[in-house]
Formats: sequence, C-alpha cells, structure tokens
Amino acid sequence: MDMTFIPGGVCAAGGFRANGVRCGIKASSKKRDLALIVSDKRCAAAAVYTANLVKSAPIRVTKAHLADGYAQAVICNSGNANTCNANGMEIAEGMCELTRRYLGINAEDVIVGSTGVIGQPMSLAPIEAGMEELAAGLGDHSDLAEDAIMTTDTVPKEAAVEFEIAGVKCRLGGIAKGSGMIHPNMATMLVFVTSDCAISPQMLQRAVSEDVKTSFNMVSVDGDTSTNDTFAVMANGLAGNPLIDREGENFDIFCAALHAVTVKLCRSIAKDGEGATKLVTCRLTGAGDEETAKTVAKAVICSSLTKAAMFGADANWGRVLCAIGYSGAPVDVDRVDVSFRSRAGQVDVCRDGAGVPFSEDEAKKVLLEDEIDILVELNAGDASAEAWGCDLTYDYVKINGDYRT
Amino acid sequence: MDMTFIPGGVCAAGGFRANGVRCGIKASSKKRDLALIVSDKRCAAAAVYTANLVKSAPIRVTKAHLADGYAQAVICNSGNANTCNANGMEIAEGMCELTRRYLGINAEDVIVGSTGVIGQPMSLAPIEAGMEELAAGLGDHSDLAEDAIMTTDTVPKEAAVEFEIAGVKCRLGGIAKGSGMIHPNMATMLVFVTSDCAISPQMLQRAVSEDVKTSFNMVSVDGDTSTNDTFAVMANGLAGNPLIDREGENFDIFCAALHAVTVKLCRSIAKDGEGATKLVTCRLTGAGDEETAKTVAKAVICSSLTKAAMFGADANWGRVLCAIGYSGAPVDVDRVDVSFRSRAGQVDVCRDGAGVPFSEDEAKKVLLEDEIDILVELNAGDASAEAWGCDLTYDYVKINGDYRT
Repeated sequence: MDMTFIPGGVCAAGGFRANGVRCGIKASSKKRDLALIVSDKRCAAAAVYTANLVKSAPIRVTKAHLADGYAQAVICNSGNANTCNANGMEIAEGMCELTRRYLGINAEDVIVGSTGVIGQPMSLAPIEAGMEELAAGLGDHSDLAEDAIMTTDTVPKEAAVEFEIAGVKCRLGGIAKGSGMIHPNMATMLVFVTSDCAISPQMLQRAVSEDVKTSFNMVSVDGDTSTNDTFAVMANGLAGNPLIDREGENFDIFCAALHAVTVKLCRSIAKDGEGATKLVTCRLTGAGDEETAKTVAKAVICSSLTKAAMFGADANWGRVLCAIGYSGAPVDVDRVDVSFRSRAGQVDVCRDGAGVPFSEDEAKKVLLEDEIDILVELNAGDASAEAWGCDLTYDYVKINGDYRT
Repeated sequence: MDMTFIPGGVCAAGGFRANGVRCGIKASSKKRDLALIVSDKRCAAAAVYTANLVKSAPIRVTKAHLADGYAQAVICNSGNANTCNANGMEIAEGMCELTRRYLGINAEDVIVGSTGVIGQPMSLAPIEAGMEELAAGLGDHSDLAEDAIMTTDTVPKEAAVEFEIAGVKCRLGGIAKGSGMIHPNMATMLVFVTSDCAISPQMLQRAVSEDVKTSFNMVSVDGDTSTNDTFAVMANGLAGNPLIDREGENFDIFCAALHAVTVKLCRSIAKDGEGATKLVTCRLTGAGDEETAKTVAKAVICSSLTKAAMFGADANWGRVLCAIGYSGAPVDVDRVDVSFRSRAGQVDVCRDGAGVPFSEDEAKKVLLEDEIDILVELNAGDASAEAWGCDLTYDYVKINGDYRT
C-alpha cells in the first residue's frame, strides 16, 4: 500500500477551503479565535464525542446535525468552551446560522465546535462581527484555521496523506487542538479531518469509531476528560474513486490513511501537552489480550509519578511497575520487563518484575531526549498497544494554576 | 458518646511502647529510618493492604503473620520500599526475626513495613546494627517512631482518642506516613494504630475493613496507588473492658473511636501531600446512593486541573463540573450546585449545572486559605461522602522529578 505524507492539513484534500481570524472572543488583541472549514460539495460526515456527561452545547448541536450522515462546513471558536452556559444552545445554533448566511449552505450541514474556559458567559456578537472577514478570506489556509482553534497549544497540529483507492489518488488531512484537559474517552479534543475520498456516511462513521480506539483514546496529558472533545471527519468524494460503501480492501486503505493522520496528531497533542518538555510513548507488548495491553499502557502514561520522573530524566522504573500493578488489568507482575529507549539508546531496567543493574549515566542520557519510549513486555501473550503522553512539569502547574486570568 | 482527643499517638493506649532510630538505610546521616512499636501483651490484630498487584515483600510477610488474628509488635523502615527486590522476602523475614531476638516475642507476631524507593537493592545489615539501640530505647516515644517512618512527609502524623466501653476508659491512637504515591485502594500508605481495648480479632478485622471505605480509600494526593499500603491495628485488651466479640453498642463505639483517629490521619496525609500548600476536601451531598457520592467526591479531588486551580486560588469551577462529568457515576449534571468554602467564607459559583455571577475578589479570598472545601450538591438523593486531597504545585513536580538522587 502506497501512502505519502503531504502538507496542507484540512486543505490537502480537493475541494476544501479554510480560514481563521481574530473576532475578539479571546482577551488578547492578537490571537485568532474563529475558524472555518468548508467543502465545495456536501460531504459524508461522521464524528465521535466526549464520554463526559457534561457536554458542550456545540456537541449537542453537532450531534443533531450529523444524524443524517452529511455535513459541509466546520465553524469553531477558541477562548470560550460554550459549556455550562445558560445560553449555550442559542450561541451554538447561532454560529451555524451565521455559517449558513455567509456560505449559502444548510445550517443543518454545519459542524460547530468551541474550546476554552467552561462556564464563562458568551455572546454571539464577536462571531457575527468576524464572519465577513472569515468567509471572504477562505482559501488554502489550513494554517490559519489551526491557529484559530489553539488555546494553550504552543504549536499548530496538522497531518495529511495521499493514498490510492482503486488507482485513484485520494487525500486525507486534519488539524487538531489539544494541550490540557486531555484524557479522551470515546473521542477527543477538537480534531477536524477532511478527505476527497468517496465513502458512504455509514462506512465513514465505522472508520472513525474504530480509529479512536487506538488513536485519541490512547492519549493522556492530565487524566481530565474534556467536556468538548470532538473528532469529526468530512469526505466530499471529489477524488472520484469508486464509492467505499462496504468492507474490503478499499475500506482498509481508507482506515489506514485515517490512522496515519490521527496517530501523527496524537503524538503532536501529547508532545505539546501543557507544560510538557517530552513526548512519552508507552509501547506495550506481550499482553494476553488487547484490553489488557491498552489498560496497562494507558496507566503508565497517566501516572503522575512516572510523568514527573520523565521530566527529571530519572530512571525510576519502580513507578512504572507500580502503575502496571494498579492499572486494574490482570498482569503477572513477576514476569514484567521494562526498558527505557530514545534516540540516545536503550537501557533495560527491570526483568521478571525485579531490578537489573544499569548505568545511571547511560539512563540519564537516554531520558534527557525529548521523545522517550517506555517499553513494557508482559511475557503473557501476543497483544500489544501504544499510548502517548508527556512529562509533568513546573509549567503544567503554572499554566493551570491561573488559567482564567 | 464521650470521646476526647488526647496526645500520645501509638503510645496513648496502655501497654504500648515505641521508638525510632537512625540505622543508615537513608543516605542522610541525620534522618531516622527504623521504627518499632511493641505491646506488653499479645494483641488481637487486623490489617488491610494495597490493592496494587505489585506488593511489597513486607506485605506478604505481614499477611502470613496476621492469618491467626494476633500480633505483638510492628517493625518498619523508611528509605527503601523493599518492593521488586530479589531478596525482599529474606529481608522482611529477617526484620521479624531480629524483632523476635531483641524482644523475646514470636517472629510470627511481628507486623513488618517498609517505605521508600521501589526496586532498590537492600541489605539487612543496617537494621541488624540498629536493633540494639532501637530496642533499648523503647518507651513513650510515638514521636520518634513517627519520625522514623517518614519519607517525603514534612510533618509527623498522629492522632489518639480516649473513650468508654461499658464504663471502662479505653484509648486508641495511631501514626501514619504518606505524602506521595497516595491513592489508596482497599487500604493505604503506612498507618499503625494501637488500642488497649479488648476486642476479638474477628471484630477488629471487621472494624478495620469497614473503616477504610470512608477513611483512607477517600484520600488521594496523586492518583498513584502505592505497592506498600498497609493499615494495621493492634488491640491488647489491657484497658479491661468486656471483650467486644459481636456487633452492638460497644462495637459501634470502638468503630467511632477508630474513625475519629483515621479521619484525622487522612486529613493530615492529604494536607502534607507532596508539595501541597492546601488541604482540599470535597464534601458531596445529595447523591442517589453512596457509591455515586464516593465516586464523584474522589473524581473531584483527583482532577489535576482542579488541583492546579486550587493552588492558584482560581475559582475555575468548570473543572469541578468536568470532573463530575467524567467520574463514571450516573449524575444529572444539569442539577449540580457547586460552592467553595473556607474560614474566609463561602462563595456559590454554579447552580443547576450553569455558572452564577460571583465576586472574583471574594472567591480569591476564600481560596487563598490553606483548608478549602469544595461543596457539591447533586440534588438527587440523601447519600453523601467526603474525600480529601491537596493542591498540585511546583513543588510536587520538583520533589518527584528527581526523588531518587
């Protein structure tokens, strides 16, 4: 299978335009806070959302709009989560109505997203004021849309691939925001993906629902599952490939393309976790079943103590064992092997659940890199999993000690 | 019911002596690291232990020793967890054997504990060397025993009460250590409680198992369940009260005395959480059932984002709502009320799941105190729960970024 990473984010696929402007929701006079993505043609669309019982108003509206399996545009603001607001539904529906008015599409074909502080009063006025500039500037501007959905993110996050379905070139690309309140469950942060591949709404939903299990559901920055997590995909079919409307090779290729993009976004989100200095990946192998593999891998990257040790480049593997032990998964802890690995090399620290002698100097060198793998082998079977997280730093505390002011 | 807090920790009850010395397990030349508690008379004894699958060697030995329901002494070191060590069982059994030799009691009547780094090589030699001084100095020294079991704790933790069973004065007191890796499940950190009350081993175990559900299982500092958690109680009967060997008023009084001590220790542990500047209590009311009450209260105090907001004295109540929403408990989030309270007053921030106007200045004043209550009312029933935690600070990261070196 042929797949190549390409630039372009949500504008990599044919027939999509995007833009991002500053409309004034954020207090800062410089930061963009309103994004728009639109397809020339109505798209098959699918999404998954946060499992948090507290759900943003935009999620409620988007769910209703995607009930028929179709959409044509995404509008999204940053600076206010539009969650736990008395007038939240009014605002979310107002954003869709404004999109209808400026783009001439159905309000029911609009996906709406918001990100920022929960429970802050919000008004539609700045969005209304920004719409003309936003719509007029639509073009090959995935970068501006990315910028406009950022909150505490320090880098924009995008990925895109080119692949072939039945000899026809297709493209799929996405943008993401996410840095804190990252512990997705069933869905994640805000991720918008576009494709020019022809695929039915049913198969698209299936691809999305399957994908999150090994992509966004395996990322954690701080263990807090957000109220606004949304992962939405639109596919407009403009590539001209034979419609994917059943399982088979073409569906598999589409899923692989989607996964290539989502995993890249996952790693970007984890690496840009609030205050993070390192991307930490737990590569878990040898589990008796996939559920165990996922549970254990996620426990390791979620452990505050392990995260703090990674920040300090401290090979304190006992904390990894500890996390494996409390994960809740059935593990024979006396058979567990642990190693740390990075560009600088690999150091084995635990065999059969007990420490092995290792060079602290070498371990330090390995752990001072900015991308670290924690390799855990359970020696109990063939199942494996990967989970992505980051270190816990002074800056995480600083960013979150007074986020609102 | 008459109950009075008294001084004395584990030596408050009649017939108990304690001591703590420096034997050299800890690198520092000043810190005590070996503690001993002994009863003049063999005691009914009961304990609960960590639910972590990785269990310290001392826990395995203690479990075997308490199988018959009796014990007479506790020996405990700090500076090394004796967990994931190849010779762990040998060391733990050696500590009991040394206790037998110096105290003339059965090795099988010794409760053994360890706390410190996991997976570090350990030798019995320093303990052997310290035993003579440790045994010779036994006396009214609960404070020295407390000091000797501390790791990153900044303050010693003790509590004791006096109460009456059938007109007979009894005493019950305990000491605890715990600051990081605190998220007990079925038991907790190291907590040793002594009493001169006469109670059967069976009823004592029942009291202990019931107590932890609303005491140590409701504390969290960092979400990491330790491998060494042990909560052990010895009661030697020297008070002379009629033996408590069944349910009834006397058993209820004993349980109330135990709970008074354990809750005080819980609050001490949470307040002295690694790097903590504040004790944060979630008082949850109006839940449909007790399980929901506990689950939600614990989710709130475990949320990294809420903890960081408490550090910053930021009334970011959206994070509290968010934690309630992802707790996994069935909650009607549109009926939730939230307030912050402290010595400085109370500020209501959320009613029926939506924000209410409040004075940021007043909220700041409330949250700048060092003991904060987060009041959550679910408006769904009569069940309630309390959970104790702390704020997340720069110092937590500092302490854990390089704990070993």
